[in-house]
This record gives sequence, C-alpha cells and structure tokens, in this order.
Amino acid sequence: METLQELRHFFNTGNKEYRTGITIDCAIFGYHDDQLQLLLVKNKILTLWCMPGGYVKKSETLNEASARITLERTGIGNLFLKQFKTFGDPDRNNAYGIFDPEKLYEISGIRIAEDNWLMGQTISVGFYAITDMVKARPKADFLSSECRWFPIDDLPHLGFDHDEMVREALFTMRMHLYHFPVGKNLLPEKFTLKEIKQFYEVMSGKPLHATNFPNKLIKMGLIDRLEEKKRIGAHRSPTYYRFNGRVYEKALKEGLVVA
Amino acid sequence: METLQELRHFFNTGNKEYRTGITIDCAIFGYHDDQLQLLLVKNKILTLWCMPGGYVKKSETLNEASARITLERTGIGNLFLKQFKTFGDPDRNNAYGIFDPEKLYEISGIRIAEDNWLMGQTISVGFYAITDMVKARPKADFLSSECRWFPIDDLPHLGFDHDEMVREALFTMRMHLYHFPVGKNLLPEKFTLKEIKQFYEVMSGKPLHATNFPNKLIKMGLIDRLEEKKRIGAHRSPTYYRFNGRVYEKALKEGLVVA
Repeated sequence: METLQELRHFFNTGNKEYRTGITIDCAIFGYHDDQLQLLLVKNKILTLWCMPGGYVKKSETLNEASARITLERTGIGNLFLKQFKTFGDPDRNNAYGIFDPEKLYEISGIRIAEDNWLMGQTISVGFYAITDMVKARPKADFLSSECRWFPIDDLPHLGFDHDEMVREALFTMRMHLYHFPVGKNLLPEKFTLKEIKQFYEVMSGKPLHATNFPNKLIKMGLIDRLEEKKRIGAHRSPTYYRFNGRVYEKALKEGLVVA
Repeated sequence: METLQELRHFFNTGNKEYRTGITIDCAIFGYHDDQLQLLLVKNKILTLWCMPGGYVKKSETLNEASARITLERTGIGNLFLKQFKTFGDPDRNNAYGIFDPEKLYEISGIRIAEDNWLMGQTISVGFYAITDMVKARPKADFLSSECRWFPIDDLPHLGFDHDEMVREALFTMRMHLYHFPVGKNLLPEKFTLKEIKQFYEVMSGKPLHATNFPNKLIKMGLIDRLEEKKRIGAHRSPTYYRFNGRVYEKALKEGLVVA
C-alpha cells in the first residue's frame, strides 16, 4: 500500500480482492562483498522492525503473491524464492508488539471496527529470497517508516513472531545450500574456486575446506573450468570457473546433493 | 468426523471452532521390513484416494492440529511430524475430482448452501510423518470408505492436488534425511551397520556405499558401537550398534549434516 487512498480501500473492502486470514512474510537475504544481510521494514504501528509481508489475492498462487511482495520492496522481479515454513500459532500476531487501532487512526485517519476482515487470526506462509544487495532498491510503504538492510548477525528484536521466522528462514536457506544450486546473479560470471568457496562460507555461516568443497561442485558438473586465468600477481594466476547453465537449471528444478 | 451427528455439527457450525479456509494434509509414511508405504483414505464424495487431512481449530497450533489428525488415522500419538510445504493455488480443490454437494447429500443426508463456510478457497499446510507400519491402526472416518497403506512406488492417482503434495512430501522427507536423525522407533534398538544402511536406502530410494555411509553416522556420534555381536553363522557375526540418545535428541532440535 503506497498511498493513503490505497490503504483506506484495502482496510474497507480488501476482503473482496484478498483472502482473509492468510499472509505471506518474506525473508529477503542480500549478498554482496562477502556480507549476508536481511531486508527489514519498520512498522509504524508497532514501531518495531519486521520482515516485509502482505496478503494473498484470491486470484494468485502463493508463489505469485511472494513475487509481488518482494518486487514491491526491492524493485526486483524473478527473485529466487522458496517457501521455508508456515506459521499459525493462535496468538502469533501478539507475540511481540501490539497492532493498536488507535495508532492506525493517528497515522492514517482510518478507524476500523473490531470485526474488520484484517482483525482476526492469520496464518503466514514464509518465503525466503536471495538477491544481490546492490541491485535492490529498498522501498518503504505507507505503513512503514523505513526499509533497509541489516547484517544477519546484528538484527534488532523483530515484531510479531518474526524473530522465530528469521531463525527458520536462515535454517532452511542453509539446508537448501546442500540441495539447490545458488550463486547465479550473486557471483560474477567468472569466478575462482577461492571466490565460490568464500561465497558459500558467507551463506552457510561456517568454514569450508579449501579444495574438497570446490571439488564437489566440479565433480557434480555444476561449475566448468575455463581456459582463462585471473591475473593477481606475477606468481598467482588462479583459473576461472563458471556455472554450467544446463546442470544448474536442472538442479534448480530437481534438486541435488552437495555432499 | 466419526459419526453422522459429528459431521452435521461440523458442516453447520464448525466455523465457530475451526478456522475457515485453512486445512492440513498429512503424508504418513510407513516403514517396515525394507518397505516404504504411504497411508491413504478413499474419499466417499470424490471416490478417489487422498492423503488424510482436516481443518485447524482456532485454539490449536499447526503442529497440534497435525498431531491430532495423524493420531485419528493411525492411533499413534507423538509421531515424528514435519512441515514440508503449503499449497494455495486458487483452483487447487478442483485440480482432480469434484466435491459434489449432491453426493454429500446422498451419503449423509446433509444439504449445504453455496456460502457454507467449507465451500470457499482453502490453503493446505502439508506435514509428513514417519511411523512403523506395524504399530499403526489405520482407521477410516465417516466420509472415507477405506484407509490403508500403499507401496510408495505404486500409488493410485490422488484427488485434489494430492499427487503434487506427495511428490513434495517425498522430496522434503528425503532432503531431511541429510539433516535430521531418523530411525528411532523404526529400527530395532540394536542393529548392524548393514541394517541401518538398508534402512536409509529404502527411505532415500537410492543405493548407499556399504562402509562410507555408516562411517559418517559413526563419525558424527549418532550411533555407538556395542560390545555385543549378532550371531548369524559360524563365520559371520557383525557388531551391533545403537543410536546415541543425547546426540540424536540434540540433532532433532538443531539439525545436522550427513555429508
């Protein structure tokens, strides 16, 4: 919701277009220069940082809804998006911070009734995305005062049940590193074995073996050796590699095992 | 819903107790004697086999609902249950087979209106469970004519979007084999390395290395060598192993990597 008019329309008659009681929340991971960060929005009503999220249209699949929501916050379409978990504790909306209708009135002039379609229990489907931080254009909406990146190891205490959500998103993303290819659009087109090892270390949050790990990727055909070498100095010129497009796309659909 | 009275109550006033538009479907995997099977119910209205499922109470967490639903169909509480994916395509309820209100009337004498709380879009949270087939007591309910096991490689074409659900459940269960311990309550308390290797082969659906694979489990402390040996014949007496309870419980909570 970018404008007050849109927001009023959403609160009053949004239940015609959107499903009741079902939201999507997105853990948008950003990678750049050996750093892993997370995109957060500051909710004006809770006055707490939260993951970006939104409701699902009746005409949309869950994947389409998550693509729309992440596009709105980052300016990027076609993000790598995967479900990590669905959250439905009866009291999850009040886990931390309060959605105060008085505060909503103060900010927007909108008064909502107790039986407004947005006031009941919700379940939220969690999706995670990974993007190049530099390509994203973070954008707040009417109900958030800020939208920006936070280092993954220095996050604020988040509103609702989003602390738990982020833990689960990180756990699943790191599990998926063993089963789905990752790195296209994040690493340069040509990279050295040291560079892809470092990338995986940042994503997984743990040290990897300097030769065994890249050798696994080579062995499964995910990366191909190029003739070209990187010029670092007179005595150091590591070979360049690149992703094998065919193996990469197949593994995205069918999965693989980096083990 | 075991009785007609319960069912009528559920159709008429269930929206007081249950959440609207949110269901849970359970892929209940059964293991026994080197066989992997799946528990299915035959839906009387669709006249098709489906995964067991149900609605979520307003007072329940999703985990509690999945435990209740699997207990009703198997007689077993405290099953190993994990979410695998949530399904929300706008037309998923009509993907295969039709919920025909006339058929419902024929079976039960219950007439439902077009705006009945059960007639709208639903999203379904998929959980999978793994149990010892022999310990389960499969039980149909009022709307299903049968409830029984099917070999995983010989399933019928399922109703709604349940074919896709089973594929996703199997994919996630097999991915989780690398990240969560499994086998307690499925293998005997003492087992040989050959037995645990065979168990993992059935679960993962692929051959494993006879020594490398069990060595990984030993190295991470998940299984402990016992003094006792299995007596097979004069010249064959393989050593028994058992799960290390402490490592097993910790890994259930925090995850691990079998790689």
